Amino acid sequence: MKIVILGFGAVGRGVARVISLKKEYLQEKYGLQLDIVAAADRSGGAIFAEGLNPELLLKTKEETGKLSEYPDYGTKGISGVEILQKVEYDCLVEVTPTDIEDAEPALSHMMQALEDQKDVVTSNKGPLALSFSVLDDTARKNGVQFKYEASVGGAMPIINLAHDTLAGSNIESVYGILNGTTNYILSRMAKEGSSYEQTLNEAQELGIAETNPTQDVDGWDAACKIVILANSILNLKATLKDVKVEGISNITPESIALAKKEGYLIKLISEASPESLEVSPRLVKEGSPFSVEGTLNVATLKTDLAEDVTVVGKGAGSIETASAILSDLVNIWKASK
Amino acid sequence: MKIVILGFGAVGRGVARVISLKKEYLQEKYGLQLDIVAAADRSGGAIFAEGLNPELLLKTKEETGKLSEYPDYGTKGISGVEILQKVEYDCLVEVTPTDIEDAEPALSHMMQALEDQKDVVTSNKGPLALSFSVLDDTARKNGVQFKYEASVGGAMPIINLAHDTLAGSNIESVYGILNGTTNYILSRMAKEGSSYEQTLNEAQELGIAETNPTQDVDGWDAACKIVILANSILNLKATLKDVKVEGISNITPESIALAKKEGYLIKLISEASPESLEVSPRLVKEGSPFSVEGTLNVATLKTDLAEDVTVVGKGAGSIETASAILSDLVNIWKASK
Repeated sequence: MKIVILGFGAVGRGVARVISLKKEYLQEKYGLQLDIVAAADRSGGAIFAEGLNPELLLKTKEETGKLSEYPDYGTKGISGVEILQKVEYDCLVEVTPTDIEDAEPALSHMMQALEDQKDVVTSNKGPLALSFSVLDDTARKNGVQFKYEASVGGAMPIINLAHDTLAGSNIESVYGILNGTTNYILSRMAKEGSSYEQTLNEAQELGIAETNPTQDVDGWDAACKIVILANSILNLKATLKDVKVEGISNITPESIALAKKEGYLIKLISEASPESLEVSPRLVKEGSPFSVEGTLNVATLKTDLAEDVTVVGKGAGSIETASAILSDLVNIWKASK
Repeated sequence: MKIVILGFGAVGRGVARVISLKKEYLQEKYGLQLDIVAAADRSGGAIFAEGLNPELLLKTKEETGKLSEYPDYGTKGISGVEILQKVEYDCLVEVTPTDIEDAEPALSHMMQALEDQKDVVTSNKGPLALSFSVLDDTARKNGVQFKYEASVGGAMPIINLAHDTLAGSNIESVYGILNGTTNYILSRMAKEGSSYEQTLNEAQELGIAETNPTQDVDGWDAACKIVILANSILNLKATLKDVKVEGISNITPESIALAKKEGYLIKLISEASPESLEVSPRLVKEGSPFSVEGTLNVATLKTDLAEDVTVVGKGAGSIETASAILSDLVNIWKASK
């Protein structure tokens, strides 16, 4: 199976690493050989029809910061769309940075691939939160697969769980902790009694929160994810502007202490049902699966037959997120046989 | 898709109910029409090539206790194997009572179906715990599907989650609470400070524990389940006699109180790794996903790429267990297209 990786940040590098680590396992267990025929970052890209060396991609990126420096096969300034037009491949792995204003360049990459009847696997929340219907329709019309398990909850399986593992049950609502950064901050505030500002600073120093933490702490990252779950699991036609969003910056140590006295924790909860989409700080019972700490994600699917099914998993991480992309690739491969 | 249901206890009736409830949903969403061409219990069975009426099956069972009394199409004393030889069908749903001595009559039913190149779906732990390899090999050789999501954890998805949703990750060990009855008893003992005998009596009165509770309280039900997970997820070749089993009958209110003081609960934990299979009372941290109460089941899969993935769901219940059987049927149908 020939893949193109567009984007070579933490997730893209995770994909290359996982393909390198799992080469023999995939071959033996599924008869699957994954060849990276092209990979690109902001600098340009590398193309080689017989398959780039994942280890050399990682080394090139680490040493020069630029995939266009890949020995012999690097090209400066070539764009993602140009690569897709030029290369013969089966599946696009779209892992460029998320943009929630216009979803570019990821949206153009995905549309190009789908219209060329190529499968697409992605962790990119932007296009899914802004243009899910168009992408899903285009994939359907062209008879190709469009998979995005990695876009919500990193290694926490939820989308394919709902579609496949719980097939036959109707899923009525989704309720979860979908952002690791805010969960880390709220957990620390509860433990240390520290202020929001102080804890955010600490999280930034540890690299858990970004220098510009708005997307996380104001709830927009979680909002993107709940839109993705609403569209893909509840079959709604939602976009980001349909979500009522409130972040965690107004949470005080006093309110956390007050909740704790009564056996509750304050968590940033995302909820989707056919009636409403919402991200907001809410009380959850201590001792429930929702009392998870740190950067774990958790989600409950309310179903008609199986009642509540809850999953907990690592919400982020290069290898963890890449594992979700790999599961999508394997399932595309299995379905193609 | 023509199915035969052998066994019409709580799970079999749940399957009939779910097929009746979901008729239009399955048709619309998957283009799947499920026809029950035969169903049997101890009394005999009913056969009708154009499809028995699920509601009438349920009514007949409720009113007479015997499927052989099904109007016009009932036959007294016909055996499961006779039915399988006589009827044209696609998939056997084997839901007769679990027997952990010789796995019969379920094992003969399944072997008959698999050798006749029919798919098999089951919730029956006996044949899986005693003869997994033979069944799995026979299914493979005959090119048919053999699925058993319902055999472990009722509505808690775990087997298909490991095989499909986490495809590509290697699962290194499984750790879980797999028996609802013992979890109910231990939760009540922790809450009420009551003795084991008293709590068991109470659970029996409520119908949560059986009149002969040995299989549950002595750990054998959990042991069957951990064997199934070890074979199907970890690719071991284990049977029931490979499990080190210890039940909960020696747990005292004092030991529970002592654990609680240090922030721990006592739970009956099942664990499988390539090194060992074990069911025994263990300490788990209060506030962890393993502090679930009542009849919930929970399991953690340790993976190489995705780290820990944990699922929580209803461990039993007629409709809940039937939902797992339905998901297997839907996935067999999807794979056949």
